[in-house]
Amino acid sequence: MRRIRITVSYDGTEYHGWQLQPGLATIQGVLEQILGGIEGRPVAVHGSGRTDAGVHALAQAAAFDLTNPIPVTNLRKAVNRLLPPDIRITSAEETGPDFHPRFNARAKTYEYRIFRGEVCPPFERRYVYHHPYPLDEDAVAEAAGLFVGAHDFAAFAAADQTDVPGTPRVRTVFSSAAWRDCDRLLFRIRGSGFLKHMVRNMTGLLLEVGKGNLSPDDVRERLATPAAFRPGPAAPARGLFLISVEYPS
Amino acid sequence: MRRIRITVSYDGTEYHGWQLQPGLATIQGVLEQILGGIEGRPVAVHGSGRTDAGVHALAQAAAFDLTNPIPVTNLRKAVNRLLPPDIRITSAEETGPDFHPRFNARAKTYEYRIFRGEVCPPFERRYVYHHPYPLDEDAVAEAAGLFVGAHDFAAFAAADQTDVPGTPRVRTVFSSAAWRDCDRLLFRIRGSGFLKHMVRNMTGLLLEVGKGNLSPDDVRERLATPAAFRPGPAAPARGLFLISVEYPS
Repeated sequence: MRRIRITVSYDGTEYHGWQLQPGLATIQGVLEQILGGIEGRPVAVHGSGRTDAGVHALAQAAAFDLTNPIPVTNLRKAVNRLLPPDIRITSAEETGPDFHPRFNARAKTYEYRIFRGEVCPPFERRYVYHHPYPLDEDAVAEAAGLFVGAHDFAAFAAADQTDVPGTPRVRTVFSSAAWRDCDRLLFRIRGSGFLKHMVRNMTGLLLEVGKGNLSPDDVRERLATPAAFRPGPAAPARGLFLISVEYPS
Repeated sequence: MRRIRITVSYDGTEYHGWQLQPGLATIQGVLEQILGGIEGRPVAVHGSGRTDAGVHALAQAAAFDLTNPIPVTNLRKAVNRLLPPDIRITSAEETGPDFHPRFNARAKTYEYRIFRGEVCPPFERRYVYHHPYPLDEDAVAEAAGLFVGAHDFAAFAAADQTDVPGTPRVRTVFSSAAWRDCDRLLFRIRGSGFLKHMVRNMTGLLLEVGKGNLSPDDVRERLATPAAFRPGPAAPARGLFLISVEYPS
């Protein structure tokens, strides 16, 4: 049995997220179906983590076990021929039997893209949140920087079914910044791990800061006393990209 | 009655081209339906020319007459609210009663995008022709330059129903070049006007030159003695963009 590690890029528009869901189109479900066909029996594909319905990935990491001796380059080509064009395997390699894309991940980077121009180009429409209205982008940038560090991000996370209410949900953010790139306002965050809806909730809060409804101090408060706040509002899924997942080399 | 000139950007993937066709989704058809609703009676929208099914436009030019006194900025916003997100009016202005987007056009520019990387990113899939196989790109560039000048382009055009067979179909190409931009091979051509399928047939021929099936001399021959050749093969529509339409200022 070989363990294969893959990098997957996808346009999440037409999918109910990464995670397998019976009767619904998901990235994991499509990959498992195709790999199961090649292997001749069910293949479980493990991702570095879930992405929500409509969220995109430049480079999601995943792994699975295969007995089929097909060389990895041929495997990548064969799977890409069978995949719909909105999902692509960009790399495939053999890895050790201990590699686990979720438990071994050291860092993940997400980017949220807000289109600020008055008219959203048709070619961007699936890949940005169009917000042409006034925003104090300096305040957004200031607030974005506040996420850096080890914090209890419970005020930015959707409740998880396995969570005991009130349990601290500490994650470490290594870098967090927002900046303007032509017509786009970008928010990029790199951290040890992310809670469900965390980046979209962060972006939603940054937009409230930009609109003047909240201040950077309100963001500080949510980080200091998370139990006093409910998460949200979440920014729409279509502006969010999983950019990369990092592993020890 | 006012004449309004608009610039329209569209993702042509879901449309049967610009031109009105009964029972089919077309760009012109969608615009006429929405403008007719605003005006309260049929509105004819005239474009600078047709684009084929699946072809995109960064900036198609069009015009129509309206009695409704709505300011042009409000008109643009109102129409964009009613349009599907894959069609956007990027500008609207009042123009003189003599302006005609087809007859007054001085030059048009098209770009054809070929993705050369081995794996086509999901986000590009609607907007490029994926050709990861070997190509002599220097030969492609050499052949692309041969289109410059006034030539009978009959060997690059689909037959037009109104055409008498054998009639010369002279157009003037002002500039024509192919070059590599990261993973993309781009072919950009600016001319006085273009025949049906002309840019896609040119691109198809450039690909044959790149594959070594034809030489730049074969392109010269098709320009010198067009009657001896049948047009084609045409490159797929999805890689083609109408970039701009120019008018006397």
